[in-house]
Order: sequence, then structure tokens, then C-alpha cells
Amino acid sequence: MLAPILRCASPDSWLERALSDVDTLLHDHAHCEQKAASTMLSLVFRQPDPELAVQLSRMAREELGHFEMVLREMKRRGVVFGKLEPARYAAELSRGARKKDPREAMLDSFVISALIEARSAERMELLAHAVPDPALRSLYQSFRPAEERHWQLMLELGATFGDPLERLPYFAGREAELIRNGEPWVRMHA
Amino acid sequence: MLAPILRCASPDSWLERALSDVDTLLHDHAHCEQKAASTMLSLVFRQPDPELAVQLSRMAREELGHFEMVLREMKRRGVVFGKLEPARYAAELSRGARKKDPREAMLDSFVISALIEARSAERMELLAHAVPDPALRSLYQSFRPAEERHWQLMLELGATFGDPLERLPYFAGREAELIRNGEPWVRMHA
Repeated sequence: MLAPILRCASPDSWLERALSDVDTLLHDHAHCEQKAASTMLSLVFRQPDPELAVQLSRMAREELGHFEMVLREMKRRGVVFGKLEPARYAAELSRGARKKDPREAMLDSFVISALIEARSAERMELLAHAVPDPALRSLYQSFRPAEERHWQLMLELGATFGDPLERLPYFAGREAELIRNGEPWVRMHA
Repeated sequence: MLAPILRCASPDSWLERALSDVDTLLHDHAHCEQKAASTMLSLVFRQPDPELAVQLSRMAREELGHFEMVLREMKRRGVVFGKLEPARYAAELSRGARKKDPREAMLDSFVISALIEARSAERMELLAHAVPDPALRSLYQSFRPAEERHWQLMLELGATFGDPLERLPYFAGREAELIRNGEPWVRMHA
């Protein structure tokens, strides 16, 4: 099911490309989980609300748990973990964030993270149904509930700094544009 | 028990000062756990060995778990979580790290982290015996085994980049000097 905050489904071309090189997809996925944990942690640092901090910290722990699971799966398949150029998606999406006012910057960070998590949830589900390898299918299946929870939580937590729904149309539009245009390589968020 | 890599025990003055303001100690402790998790994560980013990455990621998860526990304890005691100037200890210790050669820089980071974790383990044990509040005592008690494991693991993982024992005399000397001189405020690593 497509999260209601996303404006378009992933194009078939993304799934076809992903399935053509699952090893690279996993490699990129490991980097994405690492990056997600690091982003959560930077949000913890940038705000002092302890309730929020605990929830972000828990999410970061979940992302790190996923990171470890993906690394294990890579090892099982003999995929070497190393440097890998990231998709432009997250950086492009973040370029639209306001930076001057700290509360506006935080709000935008949460909205952007919510969209990225929602897109991950959609793609985990697509992969969980399409990947031939049963072990990999159940890995993707096991990640989906967390991604689903995360996007909702990001919007909830973002509300501490303003109205996420006011910023959602702008960022959801940008996100859909990036997804429709795609990127010509195998990446989780290409 | 003092970890064999530490050159001196904490002075009594540290414990006396810590016990005089347990609330501030907890507040600083929360920041330290957060910082430790963030350091582990940056080490994950800076090296590509998947075995190492998994172990560092697990440690980061443990530190984040501690962070959440300390925040809960702060909430129970009505201590507000906010900004707090860190002790100079970690920054001073890190100033001695080599930066040019990436492998040397990594080795030094691991040795420094091992010393910080070993000092944490010692202080958790001191606090676990000295703090009057039973809930707090058992909190410190519960943290000690992880800190103990972490310093050993940091040395073990550091060996990927060189010989940690060669750098240990230098950094253990600096560490002991910082601890003996102390800092005139209530901090976990003052």
C-alpha cells in the first residue's frame, strides 16, 4: 500500500532495474540504513526535548539493527561492503529545506525524513513480493513495519516545530518529481 | 576493578564532587552516551570492514539504549535535559591523535575510545557502590558490563589498523594526567 503522503507509486522501471542487480541494491541499502541512523542521531543532537530524543534514539537503534541484518545478508551472498556512490534523491530532496530559522529547519528535516521513510516502506513491500530469493523476501518483509512506523512518527515528532502538513505539499511534490524522473542506476532510492 | 589499560584510579575528589550533584552527573552522562554512539557511528562510516561495522553498530545500539535509560532516570528525578558544556577530557585526549594517515588516525581513535570506555567502566562501578539511591545504583551497575566489553572490543577492533599496544603507553599517560589534574565541575569524565 502506498503511504498517503506519497504522490506517486514507484515506476515499474525502478523495480526492474533493482531486480537486475540485487547485490548492488543490498549494498546501497546498507549505506542507506547507516545514513538514516546517522540522520536520526543528528536530530537528537539538535533538539532538547527528552521525549523526542528517546523516540529518535529508538528509531536510530532500529536502523542500525537493519544495517547489521543487511550486512549479514551481503556476507551470505558474498557481496563486499565498501564505498558506493549514493543516489542523488536524498540530497536533492534536502536541498529544498529551509536553513535560517532552527525551528523551520527542524520541521523541514522531519518532513523530508518522513517522505524518505514512506518511500522505503513502499519499496520494501515491492521487493518483498518480487525478489525470487525467499531469504531476501522475508528480510524485506521484516523491515516494512518499522519503515511504516517511522514515517508516521517523523511527522508526529515534526509537529513539535511547526505544522508538518503545511510543508508536506511542497516536499511531496519534489519527492514525486524525483521518483518519476528516476536515476539510471541500481539504488534503493534511485 | 581498574582496567589494566588505565594508569591511575579516579581520585576521591572526583567521586565526592559527583555525589554532590547526581542530577548534573546524569545530565552529563546522557550527553556522553549520545556522543559515544555518534563516535561509534563515525567509525563505521570511516572503514569498510563489514565484521567491524557490525560490531561497532551493535555498540552504538547499546550506547543509545543507555542514553534512553539515563533520560528515563532524569525524567523520574525531574531533571531537565538541555545543553550542557562537556568536560574537556575527551577533546583533550583526542588532540593527541594522528590525523594524516587514515590508518594511523583510525588506530588512534580506537585506542582513545578504549581508554574512555575503560574509564567509564571504572566510574560506573564506583558510582554503583557509592550512590545512595538504590534505583540509580542498579542503573550504574547495569551499565558496567557493557563498558567493560566495549574497551576490550575497541582495542580488538583497533588492531585492524595497526598495533594498539604501541600507542597505548602514550595515550594512557595522557589519560592519567588528565584524570589526576581533574576538572572543577561535576562531569562523568571530569
